[in-house]
Amino acid sequence: MAITAAANAAAAPETLLASLRWRAAIKKFDAEKRIPAGAWTALEDALTLAPSSYGLQPWRFFVVDDPSLRAKLRPAAWDQAQITDADRLVVFAVKKDFGAADVERFVERVSEVRRLPVAALEGYKKMMLASASLPPERVTAWLIRQVYIALGVFLTSAAALGVDACPMEGFDKDKFDEILGLPAKGYNSVVLAAAGYRAPDDAYASQAKVRFPREEVVAHL
Amino acid sequence: MAITAAANAAAAPETLLASLRWRAAIKKFDAEKRIPAGAWTALEDALTLAPSSYGLQPWRFFVVDDPSLRAKLRPAAWDQAQITDADRLVVFAVKKDFGAADVERFVERVSEVRRLPVAALEGYKKMMLASASLPPERVTAWLIRQVYIALGVFLTSAAALGVDACPMEGFDKDKFDEILGLPAKGYNSVVLAAAGYRAPDDAYASQAKVRFPREEVVAHL
Repeated sequence: MAITAAANAAAAPETLLASLRWRAAIKKFDAEKRIPAGAWTALEDALTLAPSSYGLQPWRFFVVDDPSLRAKLRPAAWDQAQITDADRLVVFAVKKDFGAADVERFVERVSEVRRLPVAALEGYKKMMLASASLPPERVTAWLIRQVYIALGVFLTSAAALGVDACPMEGFDKDKFDEILGLPAKGYNSVVLAAAGYRAPDDAYASQAKVRFPREEVVAHL
Repeated sequence: MAITAAANAAAAPETLLASLRWRAAIKKFDAEKRIPAGAWTALEDALTLAPSSYGLQPWRFFVVDDPSLRAKLRPAAWDQAQITDADRLVVFAVKKDFGAADVERFVERVSEVRRLPVAALEGYKKMMLASASLPPERVTAWLIRQVYIALGVFLTSAAALGVDACPMEGFDKDKFDEILGLPAKGYNSVVLAAAGYRAPDDAYASQAKVRFPREEVVAHL
């Protein structure tokens, strides 16, 4: 899968901002409304295309389709209704025990996609191995930050497509890992996003968005 | 500034994906080409609108306009040319010593924007104070993750507007802090993004994007 840099028809600034202003962390989803297949596949592609340090993609995105799994997860997330009512639930997960084998796998992928001999990637590989050989807790913290880039990409992409989402940090990661069997797959849960469509009576969608003024958030030096 | 949830004209999935495929971590920027004011203001607005835990916005985005500052920063970022050549350089920074005063400031802002008495926000405030009273290194790690959401929002938004960007973790944070005087302003640098337009001979824009197949990145349970 060589992704080529196709032409990019730039959106108007007003279009982008309309979607970002419309976006809200929806708490009450319409339990009947489904995301069209084309939009959902695009959001999975957006996750696949998300940038990460060195391009390593130290993550996996688990989409929980099984209603019985969703029901088991809900008590481990403060019984929040989004867990069961949103059309989709994505568990953003980070690779466990990230190390040389993960770097090797990535280098092989670079070699395959760019049709380069692995030997030509030796310098790049050494840099990545150096980063991956820091103390494990530092490596994990670094990789978790990459997962949050993917969360930002997902939330912005969903808004652009008119799909509602709710990012969620308030859940028991150990219980989620156990219920979904993530550690056995080599991953740990990091953060969640529910996605679907807001219920007409969602209390949050109609509230004014609270932001500090741009002049306090962005400073010029 | 009450931001109301205006209508959102959803983009087509193909439009979103074209921009995400076009996006690349550009290393060689066109040093002459400027981002139009409307697009840049929209990107500052996108940063202002970025989501964060509780909506706390524990960040500031420093846009380094002064060429002499840029020249001083460059050696502290492995002498990478993007630091001086890109039209814009954003230093994503996290609030230092985040605590009760920051929560108070936010609660006052919620009260102001939503026209609610502060007393009505007592429960919300208690939750935030509990999170902010964890050990300082845990609080900082949590807030840095929020900054990475903003990075993901910025990179996706720039791509949507046809603006090139380059996220950068490889820099000396202490030196950046010192050169820009960030700690005195209450912030620490976290990550960078250069923004502008790719030079015609940028080596990265023309290379195939390396991603693992969607089937390996997204799993259904």
